[in-house]
Amino acid sequence: MHDRVRSARLAERMMSADEAATLVQPGMTVAMSGFTGAGYPKAVPQSLAKLMARENDAGNTFRIKVLTGASTAPELDGVLAEAKGMELRLPFQSDPALRNQINAGELDYIDIHLGHVAQHTWFGFFGHIDLAIVEVAGILEDGRLIPSSSVGNNKTWLEQADKVILEVNNWQPDGLEGMHDVYYGTALPPNRKPIMLEQPDDRIGDLYLHVDPAKVVAVVETDAPDRNSPFSPPDETSQRIAGHILEFFEHEIKRGRMPEKLLPLQSGVGNVANAVLAGLATGGYEGLTAYTEVIQDGMLDLIKSGVLRMASATSFSLSAAGLEEFNANVDFYRERILLRPQEISNHPEVIRRLGCIAMNGMIEADIYGNVNSTHIAGTKMMNGIGGSGDFARNSYLSIFMSPSTAKGGAISGIVPMASHVDHTEHDTMVLVTEQGLADMRGLSPKQRARLVIEKCAHPDYQPLLADYFDRACRDSHGKHTPHLLGEALSWHERFVDSGSMLP
Amino acid sequence: MHDRVRSARLAERMMSADEAATLVQPGMTVAMSGFTGAGYPKAVPQSLAKLMARENDAGNTFRIKVLTGASTAPELDGVLAEAKGMELRLPFQSDPALRNQINAGELDYIDIHLGHVAQHTWFGFFGHIDLAIVEVAGILEDGRLIPSSSVGNNKTWLEQADKVILEVNNWQPDGLEGMHDVYYGTALPPNRKPIMLEQPDDRIGDLYLHVDPAKVVAVVETDAPDRNSPFSPPDETSQRIAGHILEFFEHEIKRGRMPEKLLPLQSGVGNVANAVLAGLATGGYEGLTAYTEVIQDGMLDLIKSGVLRMASATSFSLSAAGLEEFNANVDFYRERILLRPQEISNHPEVIRRLGCIAMNGMIEADIYGNVNSTHIAGTKMMNGIGGSGDFARNSYLSIFMSPSTAKGGAISGIVPMASHVDHTEHDTMVLVTEQGLADMRGLSPKQRARLVIEKCAHPDYQPLLADYFDRACRDSHGKHTPHLLGEALSWHERFVDSGSMLP
Repeated sequence: MHDRVRSARLAERMMSADEAATLVQPGMTVAMSGFTGAGYPKAVPQSLAKLMARENDAGNTFRIKVLTGASTAPELDGVLAEAKGMELRLPFQSDPALRNQINAGELDYIDIHLGHVAQHTWFGFFGHIDLAIVEVAGILEDGRLIPSSSVGNNKTWLEQADKVILEVNNWQPDGLEGMHDVYYGTALPPNRKPIMLEQPDDRIGDLYLHVDPAKVVAVVETDAPDRNSPFSPPDETSQRIAGHILEFFEHEIKRGRMPEKLLPLQSGVGNVANAVLAGLATGGYEGLTAYTEVIQDGMLDLIKSGVLRMASATSFSLSAAGLEEFNANVDFYRERILLRPQEISNHPEVIRRLGCIAMNGMIEADIYGNVNSTHIAGTKMMNGIGGSGDFARNSYLSIFMSPSTAKGGAISGIVPMASHVDHTEHDTMVLVTEQGLADMRGLSPKQRARLVIEKCAHPDYQPLLADYFDRACRDSHGKHTPHLLGEALSWHERFVDSGSMLP
Repeated sequence: MHDRVRSARLAERMMSADEAATLVQPGMTVAMSGFTGAGYPKAVPQSLAKLMARENDAGNTFRIKVLTGASTAPELDGVLAEAKGMELRLPFQSDPALRNQINAGELDYIDIHLGHVAQHTWFGFFGHIDLAIVEVAGILEDGRLIPSSSVGNNKTWLEQADKVILEVNNWQPDGLEGMHDVYYGTALPPNRKPIMLEQPDDRIGDLYLHVDPAKVVAVVETDAPDRNSPFSPPDETSQRIAGHILEFFEHEIKRGRMPEKLLPLQSGVGNVANAVLAGLATGGYEGLTAYTEVIQDGMLDLIKSGVLRMASATSFSLSAAGLEEFNANVDFYRERILLRPQEISNHPEVIRRLGCIAMNGMIEADIYGNVNSTHIAGTKMMNGIGGSGDFARNSYLSIFMSPSTAKGGAISGIVPMASHVDHTEHDTMVLVTEQGLADMRGLSPKQRARLVIEKCAHPDYQPLLADYFDRACRDSHGKHTPHLLGEALSWHERFVDSGSMLP
């Protein structure tokens, strides 16, 4: 008897990854688990990539459409990209090989709000799902599934796919069991009901995922770690950004615009986000909550110290040290962490009701507060919008943050006109760089521009932005949102041509 | 005893509009009723404008900040603009004099989602509200207020303002009483509860508005009509746009992606919207619902014929003929129309749950499906985003529609790059012009571009767009969203310089 595969019926379907991979046919739409490098299938995609490479080398095109929760890892996106095995990929991705192919125009990539993926699938907007490949932490006697280190879109994949391949990963901690809350109350309009979640720690679903056992065509055992998410201590720039945000929180509390326990925090991943979390630890806060997508190292620290009472998310993204801490104290964390499907972690209804504080990174903002989260110089895809739009639109407060320059000063984070817009002026409230914080709430476009240039721009770019804005105010066709159309994107053009936005 | 002012206590506050206007002080933030030319105060703003003009002429600056529900009429926005009496205005507006001042840079205008205005006010993002001037249809003995022909933000204005001036408009039909549903269950986070509205006709609130009588400093009687919204029969272009949409609905029903009774309809105002409504009347539909902002003539027709079972909105916008029809049959319509506060008519929670079909006009879309709803040539404000963002983001289906050209062919509705983005590629699903319909769901940027150019562009511009896209695919820095940065906004530049986008 296998420890983790306790259903006799499903145990009969056990086979090797190489065998399971032969069930994938060219042209299929294949939905896979995985969210920010956690809980993705680790064996079948690698076997599949070998098959694909062999066929593609032989001139027999073998490509599939791949849907996931969000980004995965080299063992999934990386190997499938190398094998030139994807004709379509959605939603968020962060694999270098895949990104290169997207930007070379070699495959179709659909960048979509993470909170929309599940319902667009139910609606049939992505067509039929032929196969799901989903990692789980175990299978119960009755066939229910213990979710893995991410929930993502797995409920949807298991329900919508014709056939299912399960990867049971022995490496995932036993202690994950009991940490999930899988909401099964969704419906299609016109039959939808309110989602009765009023606090981040409300449980509204099941501990387990369900699957029709008749659909399960393969069960593959694995024993492989999630992608390691290295954690580096915050650098000075990140610390300064965090400092501005923490000062702003204190100011808002003093003004009576924010409760002393703040409001549920949503935080993107990365250095700046970790610095903000680290800053919260020293701010005298306690009993806070998070309603977010990803539990990263910084969140564990806050939970341990009591600064954070609990966190709701859809995935983990831990470093080796973070994982060690988690495994050693899993009973403690299980009482304080909930993993939900991403259509609930990112649901507009819930985010608006809870009144989250959304903190997300960006590539650039323009002087009017339009934010580009996805495209370098308007044309090159970085990773995707992720959940930033789900949270920015519906949160109590939407904060976007970035260093004021990138590439050693060659790129300004504040530009005359965003080269691609993912978050419009209507959805952005606060911009922060290490230079300062611009609170744009209740300001008109020109008031915003003056403040953003003053507070957020790097000194190397500040006079250039001020000069652009002055001339635009004088010469623009319309003077509600002044622009010089022939010059608005010239900074990006210069960067593409010369490698720097500086003249 | 006054018929419409039945509260003895409030009757004591009755005075002339000229007297009431003297209660307004320079620098005040004044919140006024009014939504798409319905239910706005008709006397006090005109008296106030006279005061302002006198003071401003004498060199004593008299300007105020004006918040409304949406657009009003010449008797409010028009006269205050003429008097140069506004330093700030939000949200949506459509008055020519006001628009000219905005685009001359003479006052600050904040363009914001209509569904965000109330909560941003509660959050304190617009500062303190000194005074509310609200039109009502009557005052009950106990001081409760019969709402007028729009609800808009009136609940918020009455609650948040220090002082209140009521205009009781005898012109408004008696029959309005009983048609409103004013939700009083809102709260600030972290104390928010689900909004238990599951169908467009669910009642969740009160018939009347409440006001603290101690705050009422003036009651002014008026007898003046709402702004007349002229209704012209759909022209051929509008009919062709409507035809494409109706064909698409049939196709979606056949594919099983839409119920036979469709889903709750949201419709912008104007010719194209009226043509779509008229088209529905001939499509064999019955028992449909609308969950929208404005009841226009076309909606009354559909309700009368039973095509529409009922409509939920926040305001009326009727022609003289429409009003006559409404007044003659008010008992019939009262059973089939609900007017709600705009924070409920435009609430993301409710719109997502109901799964609305959102149909809104646009100024332009780019080949990748980014939509500009607000700015001519990127700089000149037209009216504002209105509720289009509230609906486009959260509806089951988001449709944007426009003639393929404007100004006799000098402007293309489809451009290489949108000169301002109000709805990102992540939020737009279907584009329609009289040329055809582009269903962009499940498509990557380049797939979208090919389809939009093929289906929606005018023949005069189609080869130019195809040429731009081909060259961008060849020469763009990144090839996920190909663009030629030096040329992307050249069509708008050419229009500003020469009066035409054509070379």
